[in-house]
Amino acid sequence: MTLIQATDKPEAVFSLSTVRRLPCYVRILKELTESGREIVSSETIANRLNLLPIVVRKDLASVGIVGKPRIGYNVVYLLDAIEQRIGIHNTSTAILAGAGNLGSALLGSVSLRENGLDIVAAIDCNAGKIGTRIHGKPVYELTEATELIKTVNIRLGILCVPYQAAQQMADSLVEAGIRGIWNFTTRELSLPSHVIVQNEDLTAGLALLSVALMREEHCLRNTEQVKPT
Amino acid sequence: MTLIQATDKPEAVFSLSTVRRLPCYVRILKELTESGREIVSSETIANRLNLLPIVVRKDLASVGIVGKPRIGYNVVYLLDAIEQRIGIHNTSTAILAGAGNLGSALLGSVSLRENGLDIVAAIDCNAGKIGTRIHGKPVYELTEATELIKTVNIRLGILCVPYQAAQQMADSLVEAGIRGIWNFTTRELSLPSHVIVQNEDLTAGLALLSVALMREEHCLRNTEQVKPT
Repeated sequence: MTLIQATDKPEAVFSLSTVRRLPCYVRILKELTESGREIVSSETIANRLNLLPIVVRKDLASVGIVGKPRIGYNVVYLLDAIEQRIGIHNTSTAILAGAGNLGSALLGSVSLRENGLDIVAAIDCNAGKIGTRIHGKPVYELTEATELIKTVNIRLGILCVPYQAAQQMADSLVEAGIRGIWNFTTRELSLPSHVIVQNEDLTAGLALLSVALMREEHCLRNTEQVKPT
Repeated sequence: MTLIQATDKPEAVFSLSTVRRLPCYVRILKELTESGREIVSSETIANRLNLLPIVVRKDLASVGIVGKPRIGYNVVYLLDAIEQRIGIHNTSTAILAGAGNLGSALLGSVSLRENGLDIVAAIDCNAGKIGTRIHGKPVYELTEATELIKTVNIRLGILCVPYQAAQQMADSLVEAGIRGIWNFTTRELSLPSHVIVQNEDLTAGLALLSVALMREEHCLRNTEQVKPT
């Protein structure tokens, strides 16, 4: 029942933070199904993820799933509903531009494949790479790849080229028909409004960590100063 | 003046979204200094990053920098103040655990190096990798690496091991003295409260993109249905 409720509302709007947490719920629920668990409470899920139970309940309500008071959620239903929401069941085919270090790592990522991403090929301008395979995926030059995008109707492009080449490659991908770009470069892309861009800027994560570490050391130093010696 | 104001308040609290945007400002400001620009307005920065000017002004005010009305910000001062805030000047030495695809990519990342991260070595349990170098960085086994962490006083650990090994490796790193963990695994880590964890879960970014693409296609289908044929 709740399952139908969920899948019938694909236009529902979730917050970005909810969507970011959905893959975490999937992992917890998968572990629970593997251990044979049928029912789970929001408290249990919340504890595993260091979240407040109310956050979990709100997140799950927003994908259309409401638990039974004092009983909990049906694990299988919940897992299926969330997976449908984040598109794990409908595998997304994607093309990756820039088969350098990071690009190659993504081509071989098991975790992304398990989350419904099928990277069918890579694009590179390095003659030594074109025509080879990386983690089993063929590497094409841009014109060849453009044909592939159109033929197979690939909608998703993963951008791992150097900063200087990012805008031009993004333009070429969009011209070929790409409608969503997962941007691993640090370049802010300027693209038509119908194109969805998800920036995955690792330097932002590093900045968060550095600021937190500096703050902690500053606190430690202050504490040490007031300690009696 | 404003510069001193900024560096004297390392305990200032910024929001997470502000800290995430700081590396973007650094990139824009670097481009401006390279092109010889001395003054920049919040509007110019905002336009380049698709942000509202008020967001930029608030972010910069929170690092202690206030522009002059109708004139703008001194580019060099602003750049220096932000870089100090995110610790680009004080290079962080780090150790990376798990020299697989993603780990190797991070070991070779120029962008992370430019943002003040110095990964001095990698840890791996694969006998074929131990004793070799990846992107010039030596690969050690855990016990050897533990010594290194203690000797050099490394505070930052980058976790790229498989899901199953994540918690145990994190425990070992913390025991060796690591105080901040950049977690690229999808495992929620359970660690002492003094340890700072920054989760870099790529599947969350993929989920955001998939949901946005599905929503767009749903809208397109609905639009097509109501279109006169």
